[in-house]
Amino acid sequence: MKKRTIYEELGVSPSKEEVHKALENQEKGLYPGAFCKVLPDISGDTDYCSIFHSDSAGTKANLAYMMYKETGDLSFFKGIVQDAIIMNVDDVLCVGVSGNVLISDTISRNKRLINGEILAVLIHEHISFCKWLTALGFPIHLAGGETEDVGDLCRTLEVGVSLFSRIKRSQIIDANNVQEGDIIVGLASSGKASYETRYNSGISSNGLTLARHGTLHHQYYTKYPECYDNGIDEKLIFYGKHLLSEPLSGTDLSVGEGLLSPTRTYSPVIVEIFQHFKTKIHGIYHNTGGGQTKCLNFGNNLCYIKNDLFEIPPIFRLIQASSGASWEEMYQVFNMGHRMEIIISEELSQDIINISERFNIPAKIIGYIEKSPDSDRKNHLLLDTTEGKFQFSKILGKIV
Amino acid sequence: MKKRTIYEELGVSPSKEEVHKALENQEKGLYPGAFCKVLPDISGDTDYCSIFHSDSAGTKANLAYMMYKETGDLSFFKGIVQDAIIMNVDDVLCVGVSGNVLISDTISRNKRLINGEILAVLIHEHISFCKWLTALGFPIHLAGGETEDVGDLCRTLEVGVSLFSRIKRSQIIDANNVQEGDIIVGLASSGKASYETRYNSGISSNGLTLARHGTLHHQYYTKYPECYDNGIDEKLIFYGKHLLSEPLSGTDLSVGEGLLSPTRTYSPVIVEIFQHFKTKIHGIYHNTGGGQTKCLNFGNNLCYIKNDLFEIPPIFRLIQASSGASWEEMYQVFNMGHRMEIIISEELSQDIINISERFNIPAKIIGYIEKSPDSDRKNHLLLDTTEGKFQFSKILGKIV
Repeated sequence: MKKRTIYEELGVSPSKEEVHKALENQEKGLYPGAFCKVLPDISGDTDYCSIFHSDSAGTKANLAYMMYKETGDLSFFKGIVQDAIIMNVDDVLCVGVSGNVLISDTISRNKRLINGEILAVLIHEHISFCKWLTALGFPIHLAGGETEDVGDLCRTLEVGVSLFSRIKRSQIIDANNVQEGDIIVGLASSGKASYETRYNSGISSNGLTLARHGTLHHQYYTKYPECYDNGIDEKLIFYGKHLLSEPLSGTDLSVGEGLLSPTRTYSPVIVEIFQHFKTKIHGIYHNTGGGQTKCLNFGNNLCYIKNDLFEIPPIFRLIQASSGASWEEMYQVFNMGHRMEIIISEELSQDIINISERFNIPAKIIGYIEKSPDSDRKNHLLLDTTEGKFQFSKILGKIV
Repeated sequence: MKKRTIYEELGVSPSKEEVHKALENQEKGLYPGAFCKVLPDISGDTDYCSIFHSDSAGTKANLAYMMYKETGDLSFFKGIVQDAIIMNVDDVLCVGVSGNVLISDTISRNKRLINGEILAVLIHEHISFCKWLTALGFPIHLAGGETEDVGDLCRTLEVGVSLFSRIKRSQIIDANNVQEGDIIVGLASSGKASYETRYNSGISSNGLTLARHGTLHHQYYTKYPECYDNGIDEKLIFYGKHLLSEPLSGTDLSVGEGLLSPTRTYSPVIVEIFQHFKTKIHGIYHNTGGGQTKCLNFGNNLCYIKNDLFEIPPIFRLIQASSGASWEEMYQVFNMGHRMEIIISEELSQDIINISERFNIPAKIIGYIEKSPDSDRKNHLLLDTTEGKFQFSKILGKIV
């Protein structure tokens, strides 16, 4: 039997096997191979389709709470709102949505710990952040939301967002079109994009349970008992080497700020790519849950070879060194340097790279796609990295 | 200073003052007086509008978990899915939505406690329940969902649903039309509707924090430490008189089953009312959070007089007697006998009652509406009940 990963010990299934098993016989929508589920139009117009997506900032909210308690700075909660919105927005970019988007937010709080002042910051930031995204060229509107006082369920705070969009079917990007011979262009997850005001660590909003416990010092175990599941073995809780206030080497952020860096949106880059090359794109993959193995879920009978990844950003080196997670696990949990992949023919790759770099987001060819050596419909992935070669396959709906 | 209610001591704000304060300067949509926010059409068609709503089963999920642990019966989780869906569906019925609805679900779980088998029940029930509702005449489709392993945030389980609908503006019911001289028809919350398979206690899915702690015996404090906020004073946790397995007097349910009775949908009744009288309805109010005071949020300069309420169902008598909550608080938290109110002219009230009774849901005129005695835009409510007379007013956005 395969050894449980640290992430699994912490009560998180990175590949969501149980979810995929429960859903395996369910309808897959109009484009079963697309990055997000695409449904028939809500009003029955066969030229249109509906996309209804949900995601949240997850346990990153606990970290915002800790940083707020350490510093008194309410603005850490704003990043959580960005996380919840962008985890949705950048997913639907992958099926071709470039605006015409409504969102609804759900804030579940422990009222004893998350007061009215914090709530006001969260609610207002949803509105402000939608205005900012719209101004950047991605029209999005906050439709409404729900706030719940559920301290018996929620230890601190959970911020979730649902997104609805209605677009023409002709605008959909179906990752089923990804094919052998295609090139994978990666867009860097860390750095400072032209539309960002500060260096982004690249961490986004997945893997945070591993990142928090593996990186932060055990002194937080007694200081913040409200920030972890007290049914988990104490030796796995905040077992790392670092304090929130320590500098994150190689950046101008503290360790806490690095872990809490808000999820970058790629929407300005992708919207511009759509303006010029939309019909030429074979697929776009958003490397969130599953990290660099996300691609295995898409295309048929393909072998993904990623052999020129970005240099690993400081935040991921810190998490690995402190947590003791294997590099193999790190690549399965985190994006490790690029969170967005554009799958396209080789002759267009330089155009894509140029657009990204105009937004000060480094981009490059990080790999390519071959036909799978197996004759079945399995997908394979080879990660050829500075830290070793790692191979993964998708067999019977399961990444191994 | 006003005494804090039991519900407030338990960390829940029944009137959501902090939320309303944070939202007071925000846009109110196309029909600011409607029961739910109504937005311009997502595709810019001025004949249409969008409704995007979110709600959850809240802390009722903790009770399903406890009943499952007590009995081993997984089916208790199915009711939680019904709760999350109907808390949305019956809200949007109030603005005139009668189908053409998509939903997306979000399941946040503590994977250590909520295993794959439970997850499968939850996911499949979303699909089954949508099919059942559609067959009953309310077309609804599960678009997709998100499942998250967030044990560091979620003590047990949270099930949330977002709902999207696109309907013609001409179909919207705007509660701003409620006026003096109107009659309030109440539709009973307890009993066994023709489309239900078992007696429904009427509790729905709000007030559960008070209901659980006020009703259940302190022996659950040590048995289920995962089911409450351990930062709340122990004397407020499971301080009631009853065991889950005790019979709920006057019903064929146990106390646990009564507290967990799934939220009844009124959709078959309301859809039939719409077929005959939609344009004649002035308003529909869904008495969830805020209980019988919900009406105060709608209409202008009105005085609601409710002087012939239904007999209080056994579940609410049990909660009151065990928790020691005042009757005044009970009416502000729970529906106390009818969860849906149709505001209409007197001459149509018997037709509404007849339709409801054909579904074996008792209905009657529970009150009427007068002009407010104040010359400002305050709304007032008089509850003239078997347990006393209670007066409430809405002043500066706050119910007092």
